[in-house]
Amino acid sequence: MQVTLPEPSYAKAGVDEEREQDAFSRVMRPWLARTQVRHPMVTSITGLSSGYFATLMHIPPGPPIAMTTDGVGTKILLARQANRWEPVGIDCVANNVNDIICVGAVPLALLDYMATDRIDEGVLEELARGMYLGAGLAGIAIPGGEIAQIGAMLAAAEGGGPMLDLVGTAIGAMPAADPGGATPGGPARWRTPVDGADIRSGDVVIGLPSSGLHSNGYSLARHVLFDIAGLSLSDQVPGAGRRLDDVLLQPTRVYVPAAEALWAAGITPKGLVHISGGGLLNLGRLAADVSYELDSLPATPPVFALIAEAGRLPAATMYATFNMGIGFCVVVSRAQQQAALAALRDAGEAPVRIGWVTSRAGRNVTIPAAGLTGHGDAFHPQVLRPPYAVMSVAAWSGT
Amino acid sequence: MQVTLPEPSYAKAGVDEEREQDAFSRVMRPWLARTQVRHPMVTSITGLSSGYFATLMHIPPGPPIAMTTDGVGTKILLARQANRWEPVGIDCVANNVNDIICVGAVPLALLDYMATDRIDEGVLEELARGMYLGAGLAGIAIPGGEIAQIGAMLAAAEGGGPMLDLVGTAIGAMPAADPGGATPGGPARWRTPVDGADIRSGDVVIGLPSSGLHSNGYSLARHVLFDIAGLSLSDQVPGAGRRLDDVLLQPTRVYVPAAEALWAAGITPKGLVHISGGGLLNLGRLAADVSYELDSLPATPPVFALIAEAGRLPAATMYATFNMGIGFCVVVSRAQQQAALAALRDAGEAPVRIGWVTSRAGRNVTIPAAGLTGHGDAFHPQVLRPPYAVMSVAAWSGT
Repeated sequence: MQVTLPEPSYAKAGVDEEREQDAFSRVMRPWLARTQVRHPMVTSITGLSSGYFATLMHIPPGPPIAMTTDGVGTKILLARQANRWEPVGIDCVANNVNDIICVGAVPLALLDYMATDRIDEGVLEELARGMYLGAGLAGIAIPGGEIAQIGAMLAAAEGGGPMLDLVGTAIGAMPAADPGGATPGGPARWRTPVDGADIRSGDVVIGLPSSGLHSNGYSLARHVLFDIAGLSLSDQVPGAGRRLDDVLLQPTRVYVPAAEALWAAGITPKGLVHISGGGLLNLGRLAADVSYELDSLPATPPVFALIAEAGRLPAATMYATFNMGIGFCVVVSRAQQQAALAALRDAGEAPVRIGWVTSRAGRNVTIPAAGLTGHGDAFHPQVLRPPYAVMSVAAWSGT
Repeated sequence: MQVTLPEPSYAKAGVDEEREQDAFSRVMRPWLARTQVRHPMVTSITGLSSGYFATLMHIPPGPPIAMTTDGVGTKILLARQANRWEPVGIDCVANNVNDIICVGAVPLALLDYMATDRIDEGVLEELARGMYLGAGLAGIAIPGGEIAQIGAMLAAAEGGGPMLDLVGTAIGAMPAADPGGATPGGPARWRTPVDGADIRSGDVVIGLPSSGLHSNGYSLARHVLFDIAGLSLSDQVPGAGRRLDDVLLQPTRVYVPAAEALWAAGITPKGLVHISGGGLLNLGRLAADVSYELDSLPATPPVFALIAEAGRLPAATMYATFNMGIGFCVVVSRAQQQAALAALRDAGEAPVRIGWVTSRAGRNVTIPAAGLTGHGDAFHPQVLRPPYAVMSVAAWSGT
């Protein structure tokens, strides 16, 4: 699959997503899809072919175990530039727990991996404090991890701070279908995993605000803001009343309490979608063969306008790269819409009904206000393309 | 804790383990040790204070879940140099599953993380094939992972191949104590986790051969072999009858079948120790307050002599950095020694009784033939040091 994006595209910014997904499908998936669990204690495991936000592995009589891995990416370079590390510690947790809740699981623990060119105690402490804060928001333990001093493999650090990469792997589990039944002997049934297969035409898409870019699109954002537009971290973001460094280093929001509030209120979310790499196109990863009309998106936060203007980026690129103000989506039946909105508000969220589900096949995502229809991994102005399955690839490489 | 190693030490080679452990203890552990699981479905989780080879999390009525994370480290740079990537794919799996089996668990799945500066399909395929081969040896699935294109954070790649970092996180579980009882309704009891607490004076240490350096000590090995001694990959290793590239890129052995053969034979291993960073000092991570006298170590493979000679490295550095030919250790009672050796031989291993357990407190490891006694993280010629606990730190940073 080849899609030519307008320049400056992500490829120019050092991220060639098309090629990444192509290559993964062609040369890696054939090998990895053949791996299998030898021990009979595992009765099922979702694999590369499903490729959802998190893998589920069932080991009876225990609950299905959810797992996912993700890094902070090049947001680290901003942390270095600003010498503020706590936010990316939070991101390391948030990126992963927000994926775990998409399958309906509860995140429980995270192992972190840090590659670094040196031991800088001040930086390590800020990162650890960030991870601690993120773990608190998510309700998880961080019981282990790894620090790898591999300076020879990392970029030369200009300007004082360490060069490092920060990655997390989160583990969660499906809770009891009936919380009251969670006794040591039982329960026999766990919450049913969510994959979007029950979504139907007429269902409602609720969006939860992001806090900024979260952890996606930073290669492109840095390229256009600093290399092209020549801005600096201390510049103001027009319309935001905040400096660029504060806006760009805002940590990713943790949506665990919001998701649990839905379940606690008796809502059955039909789809739970972490809006990460690929932006709102992540809705297309839901299993049902329907489409999404996002006709009520709230105003886009000012930082996205600044990025678009700095790089003269078309809306198609912006919406396919950034979350554009929505960090998480919940799909519910129309009957549960009001109860869901109420539960989310009670959990401290500011939920917005951003659109609805249409019966059109193909998992398209349409944003009428921007004149965009997208599919798979790209938005195109008014261009519709035939259906093809890249969901599992996107799940692999993009989140 | 400060230990001055002879030069060229690991610090000179870019790995400052002393500082890493110090820093972790002082600035990271205080934060991470306070993280905890909010959901009541988890009844226990081993944390930073235990810091063993893998974390165990219990979610009744399921089995305790084991998890650990580790990367391939700078062995990647040799893969680049030789343009042979399959071995490090195997290493990515082996490093992690060999830690999972140390707690008595069965490895089940692995998520991989790859940071790379470009998409090179040939390299990706070789890595995937290596991971596939490793997964086959370990009996695990690789159901997901992440490819992060973060070229701006990685070292400039000289000589053609991509620069990348490869990391795995493995998940396992304790099997049923009685394999026949593993029915959907039961069993009530799982294999008891192994942590070495039952080890007693007179117990026997059995060593399983490594295939080479496995994945540890490569920063130091590269420094002395190439920078100091000026050797090249095509040079022969004296006494080995093999080229240096073949020897150095030999994949890490997978000890999963060996461990399972012990359990299947009715052996109760008292200690299971992956000999990784820190070499045979990893025996000191076992819980019992005893010591280890390794009086029957087999001859060290020739590559280690070459490294020692090239860098004029003293035995204390060699034994504290490299596995010196032993990749995994099993501690059993004297009564089970013969049965254990037989079971391991039947599993295709070449087990050797390398030593025994002494009643001396302090978790010292003594190698009489080399004139060394070590503790915590360093061997010293005839120098004994007071006991201090760095086990959990070593578990964090070194394996």
